[in-house]
Amino acid sequence: MVPKVVFGKGAFDQIGEIISPVRNGIAPFIYLIDSVFENNISFIEDRIPLRSMDEIIYVSTEEEPKTSQVDELVNRINSTYQFAPSGIIGIGGGSILDLSKAVAIMLTNPGSAADYQGWDLVKNKAVYHVGIPTISGTGAEVSRTTVLTGPERKLGINSDFTPFDQVILDPELINNVPKNQWFYTGMDCYIHCVESLNGTYLNAFSQSYGEKALDLCKEIFLENDLEKEDADSKLMMASWHGGMSIAYSQVGVAHAMSYGLAYVLGTKHGVGNCIVFDKLEKYYPEGVAIFKKMKEYHNITLPVGVCADITSEQLDTMCEVALSLEPLWENALGKDWKSEVNAEVLKKIYRSL
Amino acid sequence: MVPKVVFGKGAFDQIGEIISPVRNGIAPFIYLIDSVFENNISFIEDRIPLRSMDEIIYVSTEEEPKTSQVDELVNRINSTYQFAPSGIIGIGGGSILDLSKAVAIMLTNPGSAADYQGWDLVKNKAVYHVGIPTISGTGAEVSRTTVLTGPERKLGINSDFTPFDQVILDPELINNVPKNQWFYTGMDCYIHCVESLNGTYLNAFSQSYGEKALDLCKEIFLENDLEKEDADSKLMMASWHGGMSIAYSQVGVAHAMSYGLAYVLGTKHGVGNCIVFDKLEKYYPEGVAIFKKMKEYHNITLPVGVCADITSEQLDTMCEVALSLEPLWENALGKDWKSEVNAEVLKKIYRSL
Repeated sequence: MVPKVVFGKGAFDQIGEIISPVRNGIAPFIYLIDSVFENNISFIEDRIPLRSMDEIIYVSTEEEPKTSQVDELVNRINSTYQFAPSGIIGIGGGSILDLSKAVAIMLTNPGSAADYQGWDLVKNKAVYHVGIPTISGTGAEVSRTTVLTGPERKLGINSDFTPFDQVILDPELINNVPKNQWFYTGMDCYIHCVESLNGTYLNAFSQSYGEKALDLCKEIFLENDLEKEDADSKLMMASWHGGMSIAYSQVGVAHAMSYGLAYVLGTKHGVGNCIVFDKLEKYYPEGVAIFKKMKEYHNITLPVGVCADITSEQLDTMCEVALSLEPLWENALGKDWKSEVNAEVLKKIYRSL
Repeated sequence: MVPKVVFGKGAFDQIGEIISPVRNGIAPFIYLIDSVFENNISFIEDRIPLRSMDEIIYVSTEEEPKTSQVDELVNRINSTYQFAPSGIIGIGGGSILDLSKAVAIMLTNPGSAADYQGWDLVKNKAVYHVGIPTISGTGAEVSRTTVLTGPERKLGINSDFTPFDQVILDPELINNVPKNQWFYTGMDCYIHCVESLNGTYLNAFSQSYGEKALDLCKEIFLENDLEKEDADSKLMMASWHGGMSIAYSQVGVAHAMSYGLAYVLGTKHGVGNCIVFDKLEKYYPEGVAIFKKMKEYHNITLPVGVCADITSEQLDTMCEVALSLEPLWENALGKDWKSEVNAEVLKKIYRSL
């Protein structure tokens, strides 16, 4: 779990004070920041406490994070400095947070990030890393995974060394997220909860976190008497609790299928989950019904026909990637999941998207 | 926050595997265990994985933990071994968990535990420490404080070094708690939530944890369709979330007054909170009404006349100890709390107990 967290409006401005005891001589802090902030001069120049060799690297999140992108960032950092950085500070949504966790790990572990996709393959403690979400819902700020698209699969680096050493939760930072992105990323949290609470891996620990996150999602996305500021704070906490819930259980059908979609078509995680989940009444009847209400309530129109033009090879790959995520299927449908789901079943669903 | 936690029925048996990578040569693990387990041979002999110089110290929890008791334990450990222990493992209720945290801190910090009662006075990282609750409700397993009665005050050692490095939550371990103790300790959690949720320090972080813990308490203590095993798991999580809620906000009137009672009369924390909270309709009308329902539902009779025979000096001391806990009063009643509460007001309440 994340050992240190601060929460509050304006908490971001504590960053200098928080990282200062961790600074190791002249070894810099490297900020990985979503490139949408690149032209936000007042945010970057006034609020990021750069010292000596500290560096900002802007990262585009047009595409889902890749193992090759992690490797490039690590090479760039290693070839620029003769020593390990004092720390990695990720400022952005789930993609940036996942990249930051992966870069921190790969600065102390040999090889390619792709070698560590899986469970508990990381051997060495990561470089100190801080996560500062500017979009909420993915739970990446609290999870022990970092989801990456690699040469062979889309799968997380799940390890005890993955979680951030420090998280800063400042609801002000998520204030200006565009509406569609706000909805899709929030639904990532909602879908986590539905998958966790309906999973066979569930225990009282995950359940209590999942239930709270679900309650908060319903409050945020189905009630209209919340002030924007309150709604932002609550969404930040929903993302946190939702992330905790799946950290100790697992996601399910929507995530498995969404990974397949992302691997082949590069569909972004949030919207990909929504596109898939919308068709999963059979597996999550109550959850999907509430999702449709939320969608309607916020006038969200999901992309349609996303699989209309794919080749049969692409469809095969989607199914293969989705079905390779065995723990997700086992969580969703039990040990005997293979009797219920196979490539044919998934193809029908993929074709309907 | 606690960086590592395992949860589940039987999780206790992972203890050997969990601590083994932390063992430092021949430096022993010291187990501090509630003396109620001293004659539970099957638990102690079969399930505690003692190796080489590892030692069990049984600690009576007849009285609330004291700074002098911490100092004695630290002296005993320091005079027995020529090196710091590999770790301290606390197995028991809130008293044992608080003692374990304090001992781990005092093994690396000079002077008496009494020197560190307050906020952020601890300078050095504590020895590795593990908390394993066998009674649930206090939140001591997750909090960043360790409440101790010192020569001058009852006050916690609040610091970043206080929280356990590892917690093991095994609902089976709380299965045999006697009913009164189960109720009083559970009510400690319930009262935390009421005080946190009605406090001026509340933010969305604490609120989300406090609300979940409160929901769980209502389910556990007011509904009769829960299986004992489920109820135990849920109580374990309620304690966890309640502790998280106050870690990031504060307790209030009941805790302040209960500390006064404990300081003078040695009243145990759980029952002391109940005795005081029962009379606090004015401050927590809804919370007290629900508390009275829970009490009735479980046929609990609180001790009466506890302050009947106290001297006026004792009463003065009670008020002094209670009123010295300024953050608790400020949380409960706002910055202007002194206009609402003083020794006279408290004396009336104490005399009614």
